[in-house]
Amino acid sequence: MGLIDSLHSPADLRSLSEEQLEALCAEIRGFLVEKVSATGGHLGPNLGVVELTVAIHRVFDSPQDPIVFDTSHQSYVHKIVTGRANQFDTLRQKDGLSGYTDRGESPHDWTESSHASAALSVADGLAKAFALQGENDRHVVAVVGDGALTGGMCWEALNNIAADKTRNVVIVVNDNGRSYSPTIGGLAENLAQLRMQPFYDKVMESGKTTLNSMGWVGKRTFEKLRTVKEGIRHTVIPEEMFPELGMKYIGPVDGHNLQDLTGALKYARSYRGPIIVHAVTQKGRGYAPAENNAADLMHSTGIIDPETGEPRAASKPGWTKVFSDTLLEIGESRDDVVAITAAMAGPTGLAPFGERFPDRLFDVGIAEQHAMTSAAGLALGGMHPVVAIYSTFLNRAFDQLLMDVALTKLPVTIVLDRAGVTGSDGPSHNGVWDMAISGIVPGIRVNAPRDADELRAALQQAVTITDGPTVIRFPKGSLPQPLPALIRLHDGLDVLHYDDAAAVDALAGGASPISSTSITAPVGDTTPGQPALSADDTPSVLVVAIGTFAHRCMQAAELLREQSIAVTVVDPRWAIPVPPSIVALAADHDLVVTVEDGVIHGSVGSMIGQVLRAAEVDTPLRHVAVPEQFLRHASRNQVLTELGITPAALAESISGWISTIVSDDEPQQQDLEPND
Amino acid sequence: MGLIDSLHSPADLRSLSEEQLEALCAEIRGFLVEKVSATGGHLGPNLGVVELTVAIHRVFDSPQDPIVFDTSHQSYVHKIVTGRANQFDTLRQKDGLSGYTDRGESPHDWTESSHASAALSVADGLAKAFALQGENDRHVVAVVGDGALTGGMCWEALNNIAADKTRNVVIVVNDNGRSYSPTIGGLAENLAQLRMQPFYDKVMESGKTTLNSMGWVGKRTFEKLRTVKEGIRHTVIPEEMFPELGMKYIGPVDGHNLQDLTGALKYARSYRGPIIVHAVTQKGRGYAPAENNAADLMHSTGIIDPETGEPRAASKPGWTKVFSDTLLEIGESRDDVVAITAAMAGPTGLAPFGERFPDRLFDVGIAEQHAMTSAAGLALGGMHPVVAIYSTFLNRAFDQLLMDVALTKLPVTIVLDRAGVTGSDGPSHNGVWDMAISGIVPGIRVNAPRDADELRAALQQAVTITDGPTVIRFPKGSLPQPLPALIRLHDGLDVLHYDDAAAVDALAGGASPISSTSITAPVGDTTPGQPALSADDTPSVLVVAIGTFAHRCMQAAELLREQSIAVTVVDPRWAIPVPPSIVALAADHDLVVTVEDGVIHGSVGSMIGQVLRAAEVDTPLRHVAVPEQFLRHASRNQVLTELGITPAALAESISGWISTIVSDDEPQQQDLEPND
Repeated sequence: MGLIDSLHSPADLRSLSEEQLEALCAEIRGFLVEKVSATGGHLGPNLGVVELTVAIHRVFDSPQDPIVFDTSHQSYVHKIVTGRANQFDTLRQKDGLSGYTDRGESPHDWTESSHASAALSVADGLAKAFALQGENDRHVVAVVGDGALTGGMCWEALNNIAADKTRNVVIVVNDNGRSYSPTIGGLAENLAQLRMQPFYDKVMESGKTTLNSMGWVGKRTFEKLRTVKEGIRHTVIPEEMFPELGMKYIGPVDGHNLQDLTGALKYARSYRGPIIVHAVTQKGRGYAPAENNAADLMHSTGIIDPETGEPRAASKPGWTKVFSDTLLEIGESRDDVVAITAAMAGPTGLAPFGERFPDRLFDVGIAEQHAMTSAAGLALGGMHPVVAIYSTFLNRAFDQLLMDVALTKLPVTIVLDRAGVTGSDGPSHNGVWDMAISGIVPGIRVNAPRDADELRAALQQAVTITDGPTVIRFPKGSLPQPLPALIRLHDGLDVLHYDDAAAVDALAGGASPISSTSITAPVGDTTPGQPALSADDTPSVLVVAIGTFAHRCMQAAELLREQSIAVTVVDPRWAIPVPPSIVALAADHDLVVTVEDGVIHGSVGSMIGQVLRAAEVDTPLRHVAVPEQFLRHASRNQVLTELGITPAALAESISGWISTIVSDDEPQQQDLEPND
Repeated sequence: MGLIDSLHSPADLRSLSEEQLEALCAEIRGFLVEKVSATGGHLGPNLGVVELTVAIHRVFDSPQDPIVFDTSHQSYVHKIVTGRANQFDTLRQKDGLSGYTDRGESPHDWTESSHASAALSVADGLAKAFALQGENDRHVVAVVGDGALTGGMCWEALNNIAADKTRNVVIVVNDNGRSYSPTIGGLAENLAQLRMQPFYDKVMESGKTTLNSMGWVGKRTFEKLRTVKEGIRHTVIPEEMFPELGMKYIGPVDGHNLQDLTGALKYARSYRGPIIVHAVTQKGRGYAPAENNAADLMHSTGIIDPETGEPRAASKPGWTKVFSDTLLEIGESRDDVVAITAAMAGPTGLAPFGERFPDRLFDVGIAEQHAMTSAAGLALGGMHPVVAIYSTFLNRAFDQLLMDVALTKLPVTIVLDRAGVTGSDGPSHNGVWDMAISGIVPGIRVNAPRDADELRAALQQAVTITDGPTVIRFPKGSLPQPLPALIRLHDGLDVLHYDDAAAVDALAGGASPISSTSITAPVGDTTPGQPALSADDTPSVLVVAIGTFAHRCMQAAELLREQSIAVTVVDPRWAIPVPPSIVALAADHDLVVTVEDGVIHGSVGSMIGQVLRAAEVDTPLRHVAVPEQFLRHASRNQVLTELGITPAALAESISGWISTIVSDDEPQQQDLEPND
């Protein structure tokens, strides 16, 4: 590892010979395979940009010239080159190296979000700032994938970047033909033609005369051609990349040929004004297990055997598989059910549906806005679309959900994978905002299943809803044990545990006050697992558990029982809108506690609070949720522990709240008694 | 009005002669000027699409062929043609005709949102649905402005539409060179060149031979050219519209020539597959006051004199002007302050700043995503950007605010005009979501000024903040009277009114319990306007008024005083994060009421609830806010009255809540006394 060890800053690259640079690239590939095998991470994308990253850092002067990586999961090589190789054993671990660029790690890092298609906008802003300050020698380099170019933000940015020919923005298109899976759409078809073009030599030879005879269109092309330096091998300027924006273009360049890359990037640096450098790369390059993985070229991997690329541990059945199987089953009986993915058919579990019903799966590219609004169009046309995306990316489609789906009350089912705390991917991959933004949407229904049975039931139900959108959200990872309800109330709320027999009788028998709202005969087992505590002398707490937190709340209830606190644990299942029976239950307890892993502002807990207050039920209420902060990368369990969402921490919090409430009540009684 | 009166459905157009159609178009223009002058509305855009709309309805078979209008503020002619002319006296009035397409009004209307750039996505979905159902004779027509094409959603949709050459999507680009103001960016420059092209005849004549010699690029062009029908005058297929997507194109067509339009649209109908029809129109066409209004061609107008185009009533000084003036003043002393608009420099008040500092105003097009993330880039580069948009359009930039600005703690000031209930523009123009989505963002500060002085102070303060984003949001309309504070606490909260002298002493003197949190010496006048009620025997309510609702709450307080309810009215000014003194104040009152015109889920009120519960302060809390529903068009005051946000309704609600709380307390005491 001699060459990597000698790298402390990008300037060190400039003292290396061509041969040493080639050797460095080989060494970096070995290093990536070794390190990422041990920690998990984005292996394929980084193997594809080894030469590209080295060439960029050789030609430009970071951080004086900012290099902005779109999504930045392909920034591992950049981290190595900027002196962070020795931290790769801690990649994506708590307090370790981030899997994305991170401003806290290095002055060479400019952004922190993993959401695609934003880098060109950041670059446009940086270039504007430099121009205003007269720093005209600085270049801003944005590295963006061909997949990300299908996102609308890139179009907005290109339209602005192209409008001012004086600012030095170098857009490096890292074209590997892939988003997560192969890039789709008209743009992808055209890029593929560019990559395979047999005509560029012909254009170079015959262009000047032929094009001159064409009038205005030809003139523009000719002017572009004139700017090509003769020395850049395999480089042409075809007519075909964003000509309606007037974007200067150089390429396609072999993205694994250091000399070609260096030549093209030097030309781009010498050019004053915005320019696109089109580099063709191969995701997973140089690592056979990745190159042979046709599905995703090992885009993202867990801990693997570096020799074979096989996972070290067998993966447990997960939430995604349950969704995938259930949707396939629904698809067999429902011709009108269609599925939409934003370039992630594999990770969201839609691939089997697409294989079985190729006409009914639509991959729209990395384009969540279009995913949502084309779903509205499909619903207007009589279909029932299922939009499957990661929870964090719903943020990109919030306006479309509100305005294009909900305002017109269209039946669209939105399935959010990786909801709640996800962990090692860091702040921007957590799915902690979905409840907050879904809750704003009038007429929406949101389900958070607590186990596989509930997910199956929720999806079966969602596709039958005809008067508005539905969200089903579930976490990353393996499935918990099934957790059957003791009682299911007629508004859908499940009672999972209770200590107070009187409350049970009221629930089961329809007696007041609970029956006055919505409770009818229970279904399922009405026998509690434990003998009842007496309600008269025992403080009582209603715990509302969202989704999989039912399990942790059940364990907390056991701990609280030992402290003689009577606990009722309920799962609303359909968390939004709030089931009315929660109001009656809340009135019958001394404290209500809500437990979820979404942000507290706009949480389900806060919505329950609103419903209770609207009903003038003022039982004290406490929330366990994600505070107003971004969550650093760590394992999901580590993050949940920090948030106090473990059985022991929940029991401790609840016990503390109960004791304050009880002692607040007592002095009031004392005040009355002696004085009256 | 003979011809308009004879129109009951679009089919009636087909029985009219060319001369009658010309006469109809003239009649429609007169009708639009007459009707919109009386009600206000989008005059300029509709005057520009008279012939275009008539031609579309003549050639296509609505609603069998859906016609989807982007933004749909240009759908008035469509409404006339589809039998709604007789409802124009109620345009934008309560229970009257919507200013946008509305599915409740007509089967010819498909969408309801006014947010730009979504129509192509809806059209893509509809076309996919028709294809799946074998309805291959149906065409989907999407009418989109050149301005809206600068929005990223259009790019995402075009990429998908272009990918399948079998679906019948006709994209009519209504190219008037304008968004609200002139369209900007690389695309606009290119469209301008297209519109003025002197070369198309030459291409038509010489194209076949010249192009054939060009190899692959030329062949594609030639194939396109072959498809042009000879009979379409003024129509060519240049190389220049979205060639990287392979989009079939016809145009430019004179958008005011019915014959040319009809020819081009018939060609598009006969073509199987997606196609762009590029129509060049003139906004405000045929109405001199609009044509002569260079600023916005009378994009949107209030009630005017139809002869002169001048407003009937002099406009009062509004919030926008205060923002505009203050920013200009800041710009004089701060070189680093820059402004960003999404194609609305005029309506947001940024135009004067741009005139004074042309290098420091960036119009990014109808592209809120890019507005926000390029602001992040500007901030990274050392500037302090002020992004001025309408509140409702922040929805489009939520992910960018969270991920690109807040995650990296960048100093960006976001100024939201038209916040809260806006009224006559209907559901999608209301700014009722900004507090809910801003509140999710870690580290954000949100100010809702109650008067002009407060807005000035807030903006001056916002541009000095260096560690994260700031939002300032104010409503549409004229300014309220200044409302000075009695006391300003050190966390920024203003006490506007109080009845309880003891509470005043505590506040002013720093005594417990309030001083334990955050209160120091007051500023301003500490003399209350009224003699104090006694706190011992009087129920008390803390009213937290957000922004301009301070005024209505002050009037409600007067009414409540007559009922012997002691009221304290406070304005947090910086509503998010919640000022800590609210906790201490809440503990000292019998009831807390929050008043705002944002949606209740994620409201400031809900955030205050979270803060109180986190502090274990369980004073009963009630919210006056916008419920979970979309608000139909009506005047702002009509909507606020329906929501119960008038002084009388507020007083009645508060009085009712207080009496329940007091009576809930009393029975407990009765229970204790007889039995103990």
